[in-house]
Amino acid sequence: MTAPTPAPRPVSASKVEMTEIVFPNDANPLGNVMGGRVMQWLDIAAAVAAGRHARTPVVTASVDNVDFHNPVPVGGVVILLASVNFTGRTSMEVGVKMLWEERATGSRLHVVSAYLTFVSLSPETKRPAPVPPVLPESDDERRRFREAEQRRAHRLAQRK
Amino acid sequence: MTAPTPAPRPVSASKVEMTEIVFPNDANPLGNVMGGRVMQWLDIAAAVAAGRHARTPVVTASVDNVDFHNPVPVGGVVILLASVNFTGRTSMEVGVKMLWEERATGSRLHVVSAYLTFVSLSPETKRPAPVPPVLPESDDERRRFREAEQRRAHRLAQRK
Amino acid sequence: MTAPTPAPRPVSASKVEMTEIVFPNDANPLGNVMGGRVMQWLDIAAAVAAGRHARTPVVTASVDNVDFHNPVPVGGVVILLASVNFTGRTSMEVGVKMLWEERATGSRLHVVSAYLTFVSLSPETKRPAPVPPVLPESDDERRRFREAEQRRAHRLAQRK
Amino acid sequence: MTAPTPAPRPVSASKVEMTEIVFPNDANPLGNVMGGRVMQWLDIAAAVAAGRHARTPVVTASVDNVDFHNPVPVGGVVILLASVNFTGRTSMEVGVKMLWEERATGSRLHVVSAYLTFVSLSPETKRPAPVPPVLPESDDERRRFREAEQRRAHRLAQRK
Amino acid sequence: MTAPTPAPRPVSASKVEMTEIVFPNDANPLGNVMGGRVMQWLDIAAAVAAGRHARTPVVTASVDNVDFHNPVPVGGVVILLASVNFTGRTSMEVGVKMLWEERATGSRLHVVSAYLTFVSLSPETKRPAPVPPVLPESDDERRRFREAEQRRAHRLAQRK
Amino acid sequence: MTAPTPAPRPVSASKVEMTEIVFPNDANPLGNVMGGRVMQWLDIAAAVAAGRHARTPVVTASVDNVDFHNPVPVGGVVILLASVNFTGRTSMEVGVKMLWEERATGSRLHVVSAYLTFVSLSPETKRPAPVPPVLPESDDERRRFREAEQRRAHRLAQRK
Repeated sequence: MTAPTPAPRPVSASKVEMTEIVFPNDANPLGNVMGGRVMQWLDIAAAVAAGRHARTPVVTASVDNVDFHNPVPVGGVVILLASVNFTGRTSMEVGVKMLWEERATGSRLHVVSAYLTFVSLSPETKRPAPVPPVLPESDDERRRFREAEQRRAHRLAQRK
Repeated sequence: MTAPTPAPRPVSASKVEMTEIVFPNDANPLGNVMGGRVMQWLDIAAAVAAGRHARTPVVTASVDNVDFHNPVPVGGVVILLASVNFTGRTSMEVGVKMLWEERATGSRLHVVSAYLTFVSLSPETKRPAPVPPVLPESDDERRRFREAEQRRAHRLAQRK
Repeated sequence: MTAPTPAPRPVSASKVEMTEIVFPNDANPLGNVMGGRVMQWLDIAAAVAAGRHARTPVVTASVDNVDFHNPVPVGGVVILLASVNFTGRTSMEVGVKMLWEERATGSRLHVVSAYLTFVSLSPETKRPAPVPPVLPESDDERRRFREAEQRRAHRLAQRK
Repeated sequence: MTAPTPAPRPVSASKVEMTEIVFPNDANPLGNVMGGRVMQWLDIAAAVAAGRHARTPVVTASVDNVDFHNPVPVGGVVILLASVNFTGRTSMEVGVKMLWEERATGSRLHVVSAYLTFVSLSPETKRPAPVPPVLPESDDERRRFREAEQRRAHRLAQRK
Repeated sequence: MTAPTPAPRPVSASKVEMTEIVFPNDANPLGNVMGGRVMQWLDIAAAVAAGRHARTPVVTASVDNVDFHNPVPVGGVVILLASVNFTGRTSMEVGVKMLWEERATGSRLHVVSAYLTFVSLSPETKRPAPVPPVLPESDDERRRFREAEQRRAHRLAQRK
Repeated sequence: MTAPTPAPRPVSASKVEMTEIVFPNDANPLGNVMGGRVMQWLDIAAAVAAGRHARTPVVTASVDNVDFHNPVPVGGVVILLASVNFTGRTSMEVGVKMLWEERATGSRLHVVSAYLTFVSLSPETKRPAPVPPVLPESDDERRRFREAEQRRAHRLAQRK
């Protein structure tokens, strides 16, 4: 017997905003945040979005390719924005974007964007569990849904 | 010669949202987040709000009394919301609220609220620097402004 | 049936001394320890004092207002001194003081003082448990006991 | 005037072995290492390999897609193996593999593999600096070189 | 009834290589790694070697005297090499060496060497458990075996 | 020209008390503090004592052999006591003792004792600098002074 699929939930319900300060231990000897620390933050922001959507424990299954656009210095404030773009039966693709907010001007620079796939696990069996379908509502959300669908097809094709 | 006071800025411009997961090292042996770790998060969220308002480095000057209302278990997701309530010439009172979002239901419980005062420092002289006056716009923001004004008068009276 | 109140215990039996070095990750970009990190240390020192008095697990219930008097630079050695000032039936008020010891002169500067209230929990039921009454012995201890009594009355009055 | 390209260096000279234990703070509430923590380790191992090859400071430019194959429990010992597969003028592709060594049997399970691209920076100017060409020597190294070449062409094509 | 001694295992099977970067929080105010942080790395590398040999949980029983030969600056890459030199019935002596690899030249300086003794614990009873005898194979391994034997005799003599 | 030796200072002036709680990340999978973490604490407590005596920056030169007597569980409170036993011209031997205070009974168990040697560095030249001679005052301090003197002779003999 399979668990029933839960009722759909809009993209906006999974939106996560996370704010971090770059501390000395997050940085390389040049004084900028290390790529690996950024990836850890992306994973946490995305995991909260996936868990908020699925309302279950979730685990990272894969991370799509990530390009770093701008360095962030020690003391810099970064904002991470994540939401569930797309859902499979037990998996979710989460889009995350990280911005660096310059203290003196308030302007925000794009640091990195990434797509992470999470799997929902049943709290009882620890096995993959069905997730609510995500409902894209705005034009932007619908575009991201379609693009995520294509990335997933691409991922599945590459694995073969 | 004194530095000129910068142009006013609305409360909404300083709003900060911060999301954290409680990790094992944040918790006491009962498995709930320690008070001191929560206070560290309150300070970081409030410092980002104060810095976003002042656009300068800021330092914590004082913390008003803090009551803990609900324990948060390891693995719990917490959301901190901070904004500048009130400004003096070189100081800012920031209100911060921390909520625990229960995974399985999505409901949010109030964990703690606090008021922290920060001082803006000139990036050159490291001395207190004038901050933009904060502009409360909604009824709620105006009420918080008046209450902060009273807390400040109370704090100054107690110090004598 | 209520648990019996344990036998009284002198203030001196709960005294805690804690020594810490300020590391780079404890500091803001100006190179001084962050307020939130200090509050975490205050909480740990006070929790050890409360636990030493009660001989049970304890949790932070509230923190009275905290004023920061002096910045402490990275590499600075700080000393925290805590002891139980006052006891209710299941709660304890702990006073903590943090000093910065200047390396080159050995002189100690006052950084911050705070009053934290802890609740004792039964290791079995995790419910509030009676604590031994604290016995102030010196004039100083008796004065702190009376002051703590007043702060508590003030706190209870404010909550209404 | 451009800096001259340094003399070539064999793949084997950049090989890095890194060993880590999964600590409680590295894990999700299910008790397995979080994806983000793993990505941080991958970045550190790969950065050491890139730096060993280039003999300059290096920064992460991008991470190719990453699939997680096996969970690793708290207390688990992991081994990361990294080496420079391919070099451009100022960039290096590093392959990293992480294995989990089961204590009781000594057998090693594949957890994750990834390709990270680093850029060498001149210690003086902090600008991209030429790296020694990598010399693949074994059949395996030559195969990895060709595959990296294709991934790079694919990456450059996607960016357009 | 005593547990049977497992089959012998060669020294080479326990060899561990661990690579670390010195981060700001690992360093003293002079910017060099602290002795205590180095000792923590020595313990982890040695614990992995002992566990790899015994295939059981292990605990540190003692550390022989440690001399620090060279400072390592923040950003420095260090390599730790550990292997089981000698085995008693339930204990193992592990030798660890830490080298600092200078980025610009690739040369490796000796930082510290140490001998740590671990005890194997039965995963079920948590009591000391027999370990496989170690088989020194090369001349070097045989010399280290004899020297470890002497250190152990010396340690046992000193304890009386 | 050599720097003059500073005026003597009593042992009691260098006494350090440090209190720590064992957190989950300090422990092995059996739930007890790891040897390496303990050694890091020993080094910090001893470095504060040496710096308090010398009033200069200090670095760890060596650690005498260390035996672990009792495990300490997660949540355990430990007390470290350190003081300068003996001084050479630019070096100091510090004795440190770590105790575990059992919460429920208040009794203290001996976990580990160690002798660490530190060298005083001139804040200007970063070269070894003369330290004040230590003045043992009590019988206990005089005994520790003599024993430290012998350990030092033994250490110097072994190095040859």
